[in-house]
Amino acid sequence: MLSQKYQAMLNKKSAIMELSALAHARAQEIGEENVFDFSLGNPSVPAPKAYNARIIELLQQADINHVHSYSPDMGVLEAREKIAASLNRRFGMQYDAGDIVITAGAAGALAYAIRLVTSPGDEVLTFAPFFPEYAPYTELAGRRLCVVPARCADFQIDFDALERVMNARVQAVIVNTPCNPSGVVYAEETLSHLAEFLTAKEREYGHEIWLISDEPYREILFDGQKQPYVSAFYARTLSCYSFSKSLSVPGDRVGYLAVNPACGQSKLLARMAVQVSRGIGHDSTAGIVQRAAADCCDVTADFSVYARNMNLLYDELVKLGFEVVRPGGTFYMFPRAMERDAAAFCTKAARYDLILVPGDTFGVPGYFRIAYCTTEDKVRRSLEKWRELVKKEY
Amino acid sequence: MLSQKYQAMLNKKSAIMELSALAHARAQEIGEENVFDFSLGNPSVPAPKAYNARIIELLQQADINHVHSYSPDMGVLEAREKIAASLNRRFGMQYDAGDIVITAGAAGALAYAIRLVTSPGDEVLTFAPFFPEYAPYTELAGRRLCVVPARCADFQIDFDALERVMNARVQAVIVNTPCNPSGVVYAEETLSHLAEFLTAKEREYGHEIWLISDEPYREILFDGQKQPYVSAFYARTLSCYSFSKSLSVPGDRVGYLAVNPACGQSKLLARMAVQVSRGIGHDSTAGIVQRAAADCCDVTADFSVYARNMNLLYDELVKLGFEVVRPGGTFYMFPRAMERDAAAFCTKAARYDLILVPGDTFGVPGYFRIAYCTTEDKVRRSLEKWRELVKKEY
Repeated sequence: MLSQKYQAMLNKKSAIMELSALAHARAQEIGEENVFDFSLGNPSVPAPKAYNARIIELLQQADINHVHSYSPDMGVLEAREKIAASLNRRFGMQYDAGDIVITAGAAGALAYAIRLVTSPGDEVLTFAPFFPEYAPYTELAGRRLCVVPARCADFQIDFDALERVMNARVQAVIVNTPCNPSGVVYAEETLSHLAEFLTAKEREYGHEIWLISDEPYREILFDGQKQPYVSAFYARTLSCYSFSKSLSVPGDRVGYLAVNPACGQSKLLARMAVQVSRGIGHDSTAGIVQRAAADCCDVTADFSVYARNMNLLYDELVKLGFEVVRPGGTFYMFPRAMERDAAAFCTKAARYDLILVPGDTFGVPGYFRIAYCTTEDKVRRSLEKWRELVKKEY
Repeated sequence: MLSQKYQAMLNKKSAIMELSALAHARAQEIGEENVFDFSLGNPSVPAPKAYNARIIELLQQADINHVHSYSPDMGVLEAREKIAASLNRRFGMQYDAGDIVITAGAAGALAYAIRLVTSPGDEVLTFAPFFPEYAPYTELAGRRLCVVPARCADFQIDFDALERVMNARVQAVIVNTPCNPSGVVYAEETLSHLAEFLTAKEREYGHEIWLISDEPYREILFDGQKQPYVSAFYARTLSCYSFSKSLSVPGDRVGYLAVNPACGQSKLLARMAVQVSRGIGHDSTAGIVQRAAADCCDVTADFSVYARNMNLLYDELVKLGFEVVRPGGTFYMFPRAMERDAAAFCTKAARYDLILVPGDTFGVPGYFRIAYCTTEDKVRRSLEKWRELVKKEY
């Protein structure tokens, strides 16, 4: 019989997908260039030339067969060595290849991490606003997602709210910094305070609590900001990284899980990840992609357009009277809507061909997300629409 | 707390991996060319030139960014269209792109198929000898694998044994033809009889029974044999394909799930597969790999060395007195050992630097697997070792 579980999921609507469909339909009418589709977080800048060149080089080398053969089950060794060396050099860590498992993007790494350090029935905690896929990631693995309400003043962690939501069933905590959808970078104090909090709770509950750090936006930072490396604050951290945004290759499905060796069980967890992989379809990515990504792990695509777009939108929205926390990175912004019902606000915005996502999707009603991974020209041309929206509707 | 389930799996030994390690250690001593490692099914022939050329072409085209952007959730549309058209042309099927989901190899397709048509606690039936990963694939998804004993005379299906093992808890049946480890191609009569059997059992039990056809070896056939297309015999078939062997690119992790539209629910199942994907890490493969594989779906690597190796080994083993069912395809052979305990036989063979896998691993004690995806030279040089083994030990 067909699985009831997966069949039932088809009835749940995705606000983002519906908006994207709306944008697409409108584009058919008035031309794609006239629809300001800020709904999808799909990187728009080209991949670094070195990345494409490396794949081509791999395919043109003499021992061609080698590049298509099975990768070792944790991923290509040289790729894992390069990733470990880069993380050590950049963030003062102590990884070796045995702590790194190559995955199908950050989503693949999260699928491993959740299964490694929690069991069915356990709770996994995260902070609003949060990437909505955390719900299916945890629930389809038989875990329960519990959400700490947002601190809307700056989208750092609300530790009073955390204290209220925290309970002994929580075995893992997911953080996402820089954050989708707020663009906010967790400050050092936030991460230190979180580490202290988790350490105290471990003692109180008498069991380990693992930190799962989802960091696909780690390299996209504005105004010279630095992203403190989450794992450096808390030994029991599983870092879930993706090259999707840093190299602008989301379709290539490549990332990694890095287990902090300071936890004392990193080699065990990495070997366990291979067992998880057996159960979910041996989902590592192509060896040529693994090698090229690792060879480029110290370079990024040119993100300057994201910074320019952020500044253009931030300045205009503030001028128009929006409450906005200035993003420290990513290509997202999460302003407060001009009315309580963010869905109603987004419906009005759509009349001006501004396609936005209501904050309810991210666990924060009354706010909305702008994904500005588009051209600067489009963002500039959208400013007049924002002005019209506010002038005529509010 | 660390998952007990995945931690426990680390204590289970893999016979194949241990043998592979043994072969590796011996190679350090006497040189790799002197170890006849028949333990691993790792394709050894080069990928078709067209495949590498297509990836290079994709990476060199003008709209370079496009090839790295997110694929649609069922996979690149043009790739799915090409795969459907090829299957229709070659096997008289009626697929369209909506029936095809691109996956991370056949393993990825099996991970979907098992979750789509069974639920935790259900039984999944297969036939010995069988690919041993079916056990973790089903058990890690919370299903139970039950195995029909082998018909050792020809490794077709033993229908009396099937009748004894079949029960109402079985919701899905896995077949694998051409078969790893026997190399046997299921005959038309076998597949017709199986379809009749399943249809009768559906009526008897009052529920659907799905056929999961694992067919990574579909294109590797000897002596002009044809592999009847499994799905053509039974409407409720999920075909799980991999390009790993046909294009000799196992490290590229690309394959597909094809749902027979005659079942009446193929579009629903394909959309459900996307929901499975959300729960197990969005594990589709790189878009460039999807496109290149689909563009090459009517070509294969040159398999002639596998056929030559099969003939060399088959003729020699028969001459030496082994009972062997002649393989119709793959790069495997599954002879009867010269003593009851296949592990003891393989230990003796290892003294002659012949690395073989005991049949117990595949659910058939007393037999052993030879993986001859190696060079013809190596197979030729191994023949003397086979003769020594039989002469001195038996």
